[in-house]
Amino acid sequence: MKIDPELRYAISDLYAAYTACLDESRYDEWADFFTMNAWYRIVARENFDRDLPLSLMSLKGRGMMKDRVYGITSTIFHAPYYQRHIVSVPNLAIDEEGVILASTNYVVVRTKRDMAAEVYNVGRYIDEIVLDRDALKFRKKFCVYDNDLIPNSLIYPV
Amino acid sequence: MKIDPELRYAISDLYAAYTACLDESRYDEWADFFTMNAWYRIVARENFDRDLPLSLMSLKGRGMMKDRVYGITSTIFHAPYYQRHIVSVPNLAIDEEGVILASTNYVVVRTKRDMAAEVYNVGRYIDEIVLDRDALKFRKKFCVYDNDLIPNSLIYPV
Amino acid sequence: MKIDPELRYAISDLYAAYTACLDESRYDEWADFFTMNAWYRIVARENFDRDLPLSLMSLKGRGMMKDRVYGITSTIFHAPYYQRHIVSVPNLAIDEEGVILASTNYVVVRTKRDMAAEVYNVGRYIDEIVLDRDALKFRKKFCVYDNDLIPNSLIYPV
Repeated sequence: MKIDPELRYAISDLYAAYTACLDESRYDEWADFFTMNAWYRIVARENFDRDLPLSLMSLKGRGMMKDRVYGITSTIFHAPYYQRHIVSVPNLAIDEEGVILASTNYVVVRTKRDMAAEVYNVGRYIDEIVLDRDALKFRKKFCVYDNDLIPNSLIYPV
Repeated sequence: MKIDPELRYAISDLYAAYTACLDESRYDEWADFFTMNAWYRIVARENFDRDLPLSLMSLKGRGMMKDRVYGITSTIFHAPYYQRHIVSVPNLAIDEEGVILASTNYVVVRTKRDMAAEVYNVGRYIDEIVLDRDALKFRKKFCVYDNDLIPNSLIYPV
Repeated sequence: MKIDPELRYAISDLYAAYTACLDESRYDEWADFFTMNAWYRIVARENFDRDLPLSLMSLKGRGMMKDRVYGITSTIFHAPYYQRHIVSVPNLAIDEEGVILASTNYVVVRTKRDMAAEVYNVGRYIDEIVLDRDALKFRKKFCVYDNDLIPNSLIYPV
């Protein structure tokens, strides 16, 4: 199947909106970028490459996602920080069922109050995107990060 | 209003040309990316979010921009450095008057002589773009940066 | 000459595939992104700007490229590391002979085992791209890097 210009733009817009949502700390809107039963996972490259199940975060369905956001914003004690996402050019394909297979490199720069910006998380989004009631949504989003050593703990989704 | 493919490319080309101008230190050409009365501002995220007027740099009109460039290149004593801009996927919209509202994350990596590259300034361009005599120009360009703590002073526009 | 949408996508896809090849350490496939007699060069910005011939790496033709890859993967003793490329918006033009002149900023984040990610190499790709048997290939690819001071030695192509 072919990816026409309209679809290219829609995918680009999806990533732009997704990263803006996180970078502007609008965590309440985050789950809406996913289908109802989507799988969101943050996993180290070494585990991903070996098909190991261990993940830094693994959320199945919007319910778990909203729960996680509730935890972040209401219960977990942590020093807040800003994220800033930069995404690179995407690899795009469509499988026989019309699912968009998108993967793109990302880097997240983190800024804490009164500290210099730092490269915080870097890796590759490996995503499945589908049309869900006229809007593109992630059905699967794997954030496969390169750096084992994440400065302090990761609190927010990336 | 709709953003057609041609316009998408023109916007992408504008950012590519704008960042190349700065990264190649062609500061004399910098003001030409703006309309005559454009507002260029570099402002901390915290101030921007609270609508506070304090800015690191605030230039209204090409005259002030050229004056600033004259200062940089002719009068301010500073250790020169290279910039390298990376911009992410844009959020695009057009308002009812045909003004393009574009916002995109950016990261500037700075390199000084005999030093390692460092993430220098990271944030979001929040821009208004208009057609000015057949060319796209910034009517407003706000560089809203995350990191309060900018390593040394910021000399060049970003 | 004009760059139509189809060509824009094809160029974007080329960069996406090229960077994925390196980031996934598929070095054996790397030479296939080039024409038979292509010139691949990694050169410091200062040398490039002054037209000095000194390069960190300069490979002419796929033979030399494959030889280099053989060296990397089979003979050079080095601590392996991951690369992660982020590329920015491209500057595109076509010359009178139909050669695509593409230049785009890039940053490579490097991750070594049990170490934090670091900005490793940052600069500008200055490329010539041609159609070679129905596929876009690099005829010339110069990686002009800003940072003189590369943390440890550069082993892999960027």
